[in-house]
Amino acid sequence: MDPICPLDYRYGRPAMRAVFGADAYLQRLLAVEAALAEAQAAEGIIPAAHAEAIRTALPDVKRERVEAIEAEIRHDLMAVVKALAEQAGEAGASVHLGATSYDIIDTARALQHREAMELLEDGLTVLQAALAVQARVHRDTVMLGRTHGQWATPITFGLKMANYALEVQRHRRRLAELKPRLLVGKLLGAVGTGAAMAPHTLTVQAQVMEALGLTAPVATTQIIGRDRVAELVLWGANLATSLEKFTTEVRNLQRSEIAEAAEAFDAAKQVGSSTMAHKRNPITCENVAGLARVVRSLIHPALENNLQWHERDLANSSCERFVIPHSYLLLDELLHKTADVFRHLFIDPARMERNLADAQGLPLAEAVMMALASQGMDRQAAHEVVRRAAMAATAGGLSLKEALLREAEVTARLDEAALDHALDPANYLGHAGEIVDRALAELKP
Amino acid sequence: MDPICPLDYRYGRPAMRAVFGADAYLQRLLAVEAALAEAQAAEGIIPAAHAEAIRTALPDVKRERVEAIEAEIRHDLMAVVKALAEQAGEAGASVHLGATSYDIIDTARALQHREAMELLEDGLTVLQAALAVQARVHRDTVMLGRTHGQWATPITFGLKMANYALEVQRHRRRLAELKPRLLVGKLLGAVGTGAAMAPHTLTVQAQVMEALGLTAPVATTQIIGRDRVAELVLWGANLATSLEKFTTEVRNLQRSEIAEAAEAFDAAKQVGSSTMAHKRNPITCENVAGLARVVRSLIHPALENNLQWHERDLANSSCERFVIPHSYLLLDELLHKTADVFRHLFIDPARMERNLADAQGLPLAEAVMMALASQGMDRQAAHEVVRRAAMAATAGGLSLKEALLREAEVTARLDEAALDHALDPANYLGHAGEIVDRALAELKP
Amino acid sequence: MDPICPLDYRYGRPAMRAVFGADAYLQRLLAVEAALAEAQAAEGIIPAAHAEAIRTALPDVKRERVEAIEAEIRHDLMAVVKALAEQAGEAGASVHLGATSYDIIDTARALQHREAMELLEDGLTVLQAALAVQARVHRDTVMLGRTHGQWATPITFGLKMANYALEVQRHRRRLAELKPRLLVGKLLGAVGTGAAMAPHTLTVQAQVMEALGLTAPVATTQIIGRDRVAELVLWGANLATSLEKFTTEVRNLQRSEIAEAAEAFDAAKQVGSSTMAHKRNPITCENVAGLARVVRSLIHPALENNLQWHERDLANSSCERFVIPHSYLLLDELLHKTADVFRHLFIDPARMERNLADAQGLPLAEAVMMALASQGMDRQAAHEVVRRAAMAATAGGLSLKEALLREAEVTARLDEAALDHALDPANYLGHAGEIVDRALAELKP
Amino acid sequence: MDPICPLDYRYGRPAMRAVFGADAYLQRLLAVEAALAEAQAAEGIIPAAHAEAIRTALPDVKRERVEAIEAEIRHDLMAVVKALAEQAGEAGASVHLGATSYDIIDTARALQHREAMELLEDGLTVLQAALAVQARVHRDTVMLGRTHGQWATPITFGLKMANYALEVQRHRRRLAELKPRLLVGKLLGAVGTGAAMAPHTLTVQAQVMEALGLTAPVATTQIIGRDRVAELVLWGANLATSLEKFTTEVRNLQRSEIAEAAEAFDAAKQVGSSTMAHKRNPITCENVAGLARVVRSLIHPALENNLQWHERDLANSSCERFVIPHSYLLLDELLHKTADVFRHLFIDPARMERNLADAQGLPLAEAVMMALASQGMDRQAAHEVVRRAAMAATAGGLSLKEALLREAEVTARLDEAALDHALDPANYLGHAGEIVDRALAELKP
Repeated sequence: MDPICPLDYRYGRPAMRAVFGADAYLQRLLAVEAALAEAQAAEGIIPAAHAEAIRTALPDVKRERVEAIEAEIRHDLMAVVKALAEQAGEAGASVHLGATSYDIIDTARALQHREAMELLEDGLTVLQAALAVQARVHRDTVMLGRTHGQWATPITFGLKMANYALEVQRHRRRLAELKPRLLVGKLLGAVGTGAAMAPHTLTVQAQVMEALGLTAPVATTQIIGRDRVAELVLWGANLATSLEKFTTEVRNLQRSEIAEAAEAFDAAKQVGSSTMAHKRNPITCENVAGLARVVRSLIHPALENNLQWHERDLANSSCERFVIPHSYLLLDELLHKTADVFRHLFIDPARMERNLADAQGLPLAEAVMMALASQGMDRQAAHEVVRRAAMAATAGGLSLKEALLREAEVTARLDEAALDHALDPANYLGHAGEIVDRALAELKP
Repeated sequence: MDPICPLDYRYGRPAMRAVFGADAYLQRLLAVEAALAEAQAAEGIIPAAHAEAIRTALPDVKRERVEAIEAEIRHDLMAVVKALAEQAGEAGASVHLGATSYDIIDTARALQHREAMELLEDGLTVLQAALAVQARVHRDTVMLGRTHGQWATPITFGLKMANYALEVQRHRRRLAELKPRLLVGKLLGAVGTGAAMAPHTLTVQAQVMEALGLTAPVATTQIIGRDRVAELVLWGANLATSLEKFTTEVRNLQRSEIAEAAEAFDAAKQVGSSTMAHKRNPITCENVAGLARVVRSLIHPALENNLQWHERDLANSSCERFVIPHSYLLLDELLHKTADVFRHLFIDPARMERNLADAQGLPLAEAVMMALASQGMDRQAAHEVVRRAAMAATAGGLSLKEALLREAEVTARLDEAALDHALDPANYLGHAGEIVDRALAELKP
Repeated sequence: MDPICPLDYRYGRPAMRAVFGADAYLQRLLAVEAALAEAQAAEGIIPAAHAEAIRTALPDVKRERVEAIEAEIRHDLMAVVKALAEQAGEAGASVHLGATSYDIIDTARALQHREAMELLEDGLTVLQAALAVQARVHRDTVMLGRTHGQWATPITFGLKMANYALEVQRHRRRLAELKPRLLVGKLLGAVGTGAAMAPHTLTVQAQVMEALGLTAPVATTQIIGRDRVAELVLWGANLATSLEKFTTEVRNLQRSEIAEAAEAFDAAKQVGSSTMAHKRNPITCENVAGLARVVRSLIHPALENNLQWHERDLANSSCERFVIPHSYLLLDELLHKTADVFRHLFIDPARMERNLADAQGLPLAEAVMMALASQGMDRQAAHEVVRRAAMAATAGGLSLKEALLREAEVTARLDEAALDHALDPANYLGHAGEIVDRALAELKP
Repeated sequence: MDPICPLDYRYGRPAMRAVFGADAYLQRLLAVEAALAEAQAAEGIIPAAHAEAIRTALPDVKRERVEAIEAEIRHDLMAVVKALAEQAGEAGASVHLGATSYDIIDTARALQHREAMELLEDGLTVLQAALAVQARVHRDTVMLGRTHGQWATPITFGLKMANYALEVQRHRRRLAELKPRLLVGKLLGAVGTGAAMAPHTLTVQAQVMEALGLTAPVATTQIIGRDRVAELVLWGANLATSLEKFTTEVRNLQRSEIAEAAEAFDAAKQVGSSTMAHKRNPITCENVAGLARVVRSLIHPALENNLQWHERDLANSSCERFVIPHSYLLLDELLHKTADVFRHLFIDPARMERNLADAQGLPLAEAVMMALASQGMDRQAAHEVVRRAAMAATAGGLSLKEALLREAEVTARLDEAALDHALDPANYLGHAGEIVDRALAELKP
């Protein structure tokens, strides 16, 4: 078949594909049916041999057969039940006993959530580690800070990385907090009363959830509250946006005019542009930005899926077939691509230094103002004289130092050595190093 | 391979798949390369034999080979160029001459837009026709109007359908208007100057576009303005929302308590619910609602893709691999599903009549008020007495007629026959029939 | 002035207005400047008398004056600083010393977040309590369950309310988790190094945050990471969607054909419709739905605001003036409106019973199937016979009981008394009561 | 009152405020009531003196009084009707005769749409003109093209502006196309049948619409189809995104390292930064980006408002009080701010030239490749040698010319003069000038 979706021919890591493929999903539905049968056997509701036969039959249920049945009866989960019953022989009568479709579907989804969240945790760990390494290595690598796209006072590259690493850590904590709310299956039947399996429902539910490593809910309708799924998708949108920010930073630092950092590039083979032979384009970072937009777009459908009528409608069903796999596969891909970018990032401290020099002292205007103030000058007056000098420097093609040396109010207070000291970026990093150290301590597992 | 996206195992009509599959896309890229070579041959830029050889080579270019080359050089379009050059023998040197990747990609996308919009036009036509038929057939089928979920004055089912048909017609007109803005390719090179092929660029571009049935743009950057693509996706979101509205109406009319209309249902085979054997669920309508949410979600990425830096960045690229095919395939699916729902809609005029009767005259309160006013009663006074009677009827389990007969102000002006006349829904349809006729006339092709 | 935004003439509770009005915001900015001065005085950076004079000057700073200054210098926060300095006499020189604008703005926003989140917590508490009361009162009020808009097996109204109350509780927990991430101010200056106040920055920051009841961040750029603000807005969108769901349920239960519940209505005065005098429209619930859409829409801007370039750009600034106040004011309004709806909800158990009776036994089809299975009938066979009877009942205008009595396979196993028992909704509520009890226990503070 | 929304204390041009203020909206509601009365008088439904008295009473209806009535009866439009009736004396009985609330509201909104769209058309015209002027003035101002943030082949600033101007022109055309779909009022009553005023409804509707300069719809429900409003909001989101793109370009060109263009700045007074005295921040452009996000966010609520149940629900009502005014006021503000930015844009051709020189010939790599090919060199070979030279130049700190002069394959075909010719940006602008001319011709009114 000629694939339509890039997740089926271009994007998606194998480990996450193995959770969300159509076959993988079927396997998890079957796993829930088997666990249900086993719990019912333990409760004496069905014969133990039936539960065993059902478990044994699982590998023989094929998606092709399920789809063929569904084409006839037009009910996805009942097609699974029938296909399983076909393979289970006389135990077929005990398949899905007293269950409603979404008992199985929501519980199977919870199994997917667990596996998929673990993969995301791995990705977060890898990314945070990559950022932390850069923070440590470049703790004292001085560079221009930039605000509004304009030169600002100096920072260290390590501080930039530390901020990102802490942001990743916040996302990790958020995931840890929401995780228990998602690892919840259900067996409370068609409307949440558990009537069909009463009086055994709560017991069977507790056993099935324990067997599957999930939590039993206090109450549900026919389905688990979709605020739980939305929470994951919203979290993912927040994370994806952070990743887009980090990689946009690389794209900006990689600009030809800045060139302080760059995505790794295989100069021997990679084609940068079909017409401009020399270009080094930040294509992985751009790719992250584009896919982050797709992740972000999933928040509206995820929220709307919670607008259920009564004990449920079905409008979430078709929608979640997109929202859940797309969210996880793309987030997983984005985490690892972003981690790769930062792990292999080309960083050019010499260029950072040169760019600082090119700024001709302007980013240190504040430092000079502080130095003047420390010499007893009124702060507003200091602000004004430095501002005047900065404007003069910009207008006249002077360095800030040259412009300041023309200001008597300055030279009266600072000699050239004092001015040079104030204008040395390394002397105006404030607490940058200490902050990086604190951040690294905070990031420790 | 185990497919991830429901567009690769569950949704999507074959005709639209044939436009947007990965292979189908490759074919269109190749078609543009061939058209470019032919135009360049006509201009004497490359030998005519080369253009011919390139055209001949197209069927031999395979996606597997393209992907293998891309894995090495990490540039998608150059991989296509190399794969084509491999097959074109010595004409390979004339492949892609003076072109930039997005000359080919954006022009190929325009070819897809043309085919895909034609399919959408078909779907719109089919849906509008289905709605118009129902409007005509049920021009005089009286039913309860409902506002705020409450009984309101009567309407006809035909009027409801006429409104929907006109809404579809508005979407058709919008599509016709935006279409020329999307059917635009480009050959203006890396930054929009057409330098690489100058002085032939505008001539070659004009010829290629004419050959491909597209329009040449006045100006572009490296890419066609993404406001054009966004316009399509925004249009699609508006259409999808209309379809969600129409099918939500069916879901509401199919409620057990209303039961005035229902999706067709194959009672012999279709399984409504795994535990409630009798249920007739509006699953196609619910499916439409869920997929409409996915379509709607694509508007944000489509817009963000227009936030290009300078002569272009690449962040739209990965994103559009999702946004464009997903929009078209889902819209096509939604149009035909919705058309099917309305073409085969089960409509129950008897139940509509019974529901009207159950309303005990309350929806005709306004009609009585009007009758009283026409008898010279002050309108506010008429409003007040009818309101009182309506409240009394609701509170006391009376029909409105019974409650009105207890009001002297009413009986002084309207005898029982006049009251019956006022309370007959068929007498309070206003211009409904005429409006349906006008709508049908407006809908004529 | 003629107000534009409904938050300035129609919506918004006073307590929340008092946090987010333009004057209220100015007061919080000033409070941060005063706290900064006091901490600097404690560190010996400025004279204690200056800090005192600054504190004293706060009430004299007027928004009109600030706006006049801003009109001239085009910098919002510097206008505040100048206006404060004007009032502070010679202490003016010590205002804002070593601070950058967003030190003050982000810290003032954190003060607003704290007050506003407390108000939201109140709203959540009130709403959860209202739902819990209804759950307790209607623990055993039997009603139709509904799925796909169709009759399903019976539930209790208490179970419905318990589900909602638990959903509110989940939102409360989420808020409690995210709260510490938002209650963070900053004083790390223009690029996050704290250079301007070094070596005192971390000490002063710690003191200011403690004085203001906030937490000091480990690291920042010029601004606090916008993933923190986005988290609140995303949470709010999830909450608003829940509220829209709850009130949509009321709208559906209030439908003329269902009429099992309704918004409170002042029959004496409220005008339901200008032309249909008797109507009781769920206008508060509809209002909630409309405003929830506005809240939901804020998620995209909140996320995009995190796409900061380098140490910050300003694109979040204008946007947050909308996103933050609109989110909080609307959520606060929605919470209290929804709580009012449920606190005063008109609930009609008699109508619930009548609607169940009107369903003619169909919602109990599953119960009969279970009863047949408990008599040893094969489950698939039981399913099939009940399905046949349900279809026959629907088609023939019979009750399910009547249709079942015509089936020999049924009558062979269940006598009329047994059938009546199976068809009594009160006997097919499963664990509903127990689940409500568990939910109420879980909801305890 | 302390205003909450920045539209009530910070943003919004007076002309647009005059359309959407709460009082302004009331005036339009009253204007529709008066037009209705006049048409009814013309039809002999009410006395001509009544219509006259109603018209005369309009100025006496005050919003305070309307709000007081609404607080009592809880119905916004009926409060207007009552307040008008109070002022109209005995003609009060003829106010709003046979009309439903949304007859008035939707028609009044159409009046606002007309006025507001005219203002937007003005803004579009001003912006397009500003861009066209820059395109004309800088038709031949050579600068670096940039793709992926990297140097690309040269362009002219005029070409950049021409592309933007054409994009604005597309938005103008879209607005012209959608406009007639929005300039539609309605008088078809509570459910679209026009029963309350039958048999005069269609005639009265036609007269009222003509008097108000609007179009009568073919059919409606209680309300005009919200696909019409959504279309405007979607259009606005597309426009706002274009504006964000244009101003982001300025922000990027204004970067300290590029400095080819900049927002106008009042160096005498404007404060760029509270701590960095010299900074020239693109604050208007950043402001546009932030507000564009707000505009974009309105698309989801606008679409959801079309998900009407039956002949209407009210969920759009509260929502549209935000969506419609916010869209128009912000778009109007954005258009004029963006026009101001481009009208007063500081453009530095000397810096553009210097930046080109700093690129050391790399952006002309393609030109050299073309020159080699024109000398008969195989294109792939030319590509390879230029690529090698470009890499060597980048790695070795050489200019491209220097690196090329070391390549025998190059020097064998191009002497230094030929190389200099190929490396002169002015010689590699392709059709840029011609394209600008065509664009300017296209932009003519």
